[in-house]
Amino acid sequence: MTDTATLVQSLVERIELLEDKLAIQELITSYGPAVDAGRAEKVGALWTEDAVYDVDNHFMDGRDEIMAMVRGNAHQGLIHSGCGHLLDPIKIAVDGDRAVATCHSQLLRRNPDEDSFRVWRVTANRFELAKIGGEWKIQRRTSRVLDGRAEAPALLARAGH
Amino acid sequence: MTDTATLVQSLVERIELLEDKLAIQELITSYGPAVDAGRAEKVGALWTEDAVYDVDNHFMDGRDEIMAMVRGNAHQGLIHSGCGHLLDPIKIAVDGDRAVATCHSQLLRRNPDEDSFRVWRVTANRFELAKIGGEWKIQRRTSRVLDGRAEAPALLARAGH
Amino acid sequence: MTDTATLVQSLVERIELLEDKLAIQELITSYGPAVDAGRAEKVGALWTEDAVYDVDNHFMDGRDEIMAMVRGNAHQGLIHSGCGHLLDPIKIAVDGDRAVATCHSQLLRRNPDEDSFRVWRVTANRFELAKIGGEWKIQRRTSRVLDGRAEAPALLARAGH
Repeated sequence: MTDTATLVQSLVERIELLEDKLAIQELITSYGPAVDAGRAEKVGALWTEDAVYDVDNHFMDGRDEIMAMVRGNAHQGLIHSGCGHLLDPIKIAVDGDRAVATCHSQLLRRNPDEDSFRVWRVTANRFELAKIGGEWKIQRRTSRVLDGRAEAPALLARAGH
Repeated sequence: MTDTATLVQSLVERIELLEDKLAIQELITSYGPAVDAGRAEKVGALWTEDAVYDVDNHFMDGRDEIMAMVRGNAHQGLIHSGCGHLLDPIKIAVDGDRAVATCHSQLLRRNPDEDSFRVWRVTANRFELAKIGGEWKIQRRTSRVLDGRAEAPALLARAGH
Repeated sequence: MTDTATLVQSLVERIELLEDKLAIQELITSYGPAVDAGRAEKVGALWTEDAVYDVDNHFMDGRDEIMAMVRGNAHQGLIHSGCGHLLDPIKIAVDGDRAVATCHSQLLRRNPDEDSFRVWRVTANRFELAKIGGEWKIQRRTSRVLDGRAEAPALLARAGH
């Protein structure tokens, strides 16, 4: 190859890595709007079929169980009384066709008798992702509330690995 | 063209798309600092001249009305008593020289008699953007508070389209 | 050079700028997980050795003082009683091997007798960064609480410069 052809090949790899990072950003930022819209299909499309969503006291095994959570009375009730599932900026670490994304989340609920919202939960989150057939999907999300339990800081300590 | 020249042309397009996504990220992340600094000109520069900012009970028609809001007593009073306009990570979908960005926002206000802040509003946001003369601008922002009203989840359900 | 070689050289520069922006994003999003995990070494690695972290009433001069804060009783006590240090999306402006990043932060603490969190602080943040030996590091972080004091909006007004 000529020098230019060699350089161009290295640029392809650098561009692919940038594209991977933004694709993961787009995937994870799709979660909040989809879940607060109550759209189970949109939420489900972000995960692999055998994905796990492991929250403190709610272990969802497979995309179907995640979608069932979105359709369930508890979640639909949250939406109808007013809620927001928010993230803070996502730390993304890509390693080939695997990636780990780490961030905090907040779950806010409308106070029924006041002109304000209550911060119900502040949670540590670790997303394990895979690129399958050119598309990034969530394989596992682990979430632990930051209420002093040791598991939550331990989850954050693993950011980037 | 040679193979290398063809490949390079495809890279130009991929880089432009990445640049567009980061330019939109930079545009929207300019809003919070500018509005909490009370700088009407900085806020105004983010929008097209005929932009619309449609909040629940406040419809601003044109950049001048948006800038008047920033200069107004209500907004300046918020700043002087302590406030923060925050976003969560932005879902960005680009289609040529148009784009849609979706995210939640939080408006926090200092509690006057306590060492804390109150979450006054948690809101669903949809930004419609256009690239004009090489620069991205906001053409329309629609914001609906997530207090249980159906319009807010409906806005989030349109993320990416 | 041929036309293609000239074009490729311009692409290298555009890719480097995109990489710089994402590297800064990754650096700053590493802070929250590291500090809420209580890992002083991980926090320290984000700063230059002579970095300054200037918070309202706590001026830390040098990486060692920043790491001492993370190890200190006040911070470790926050973690054990439940807390989260969150950001909103970061406005990043790169100028060669220098950069400025601006965003809000939130410090949330678990309410001991309620099933909720309190927003203790909403703060304006300005990060000044340098690329040294190919790696971005924080040289100075200035943080002012948004409680109505004039310094906080003034800090936000400088976003991008």
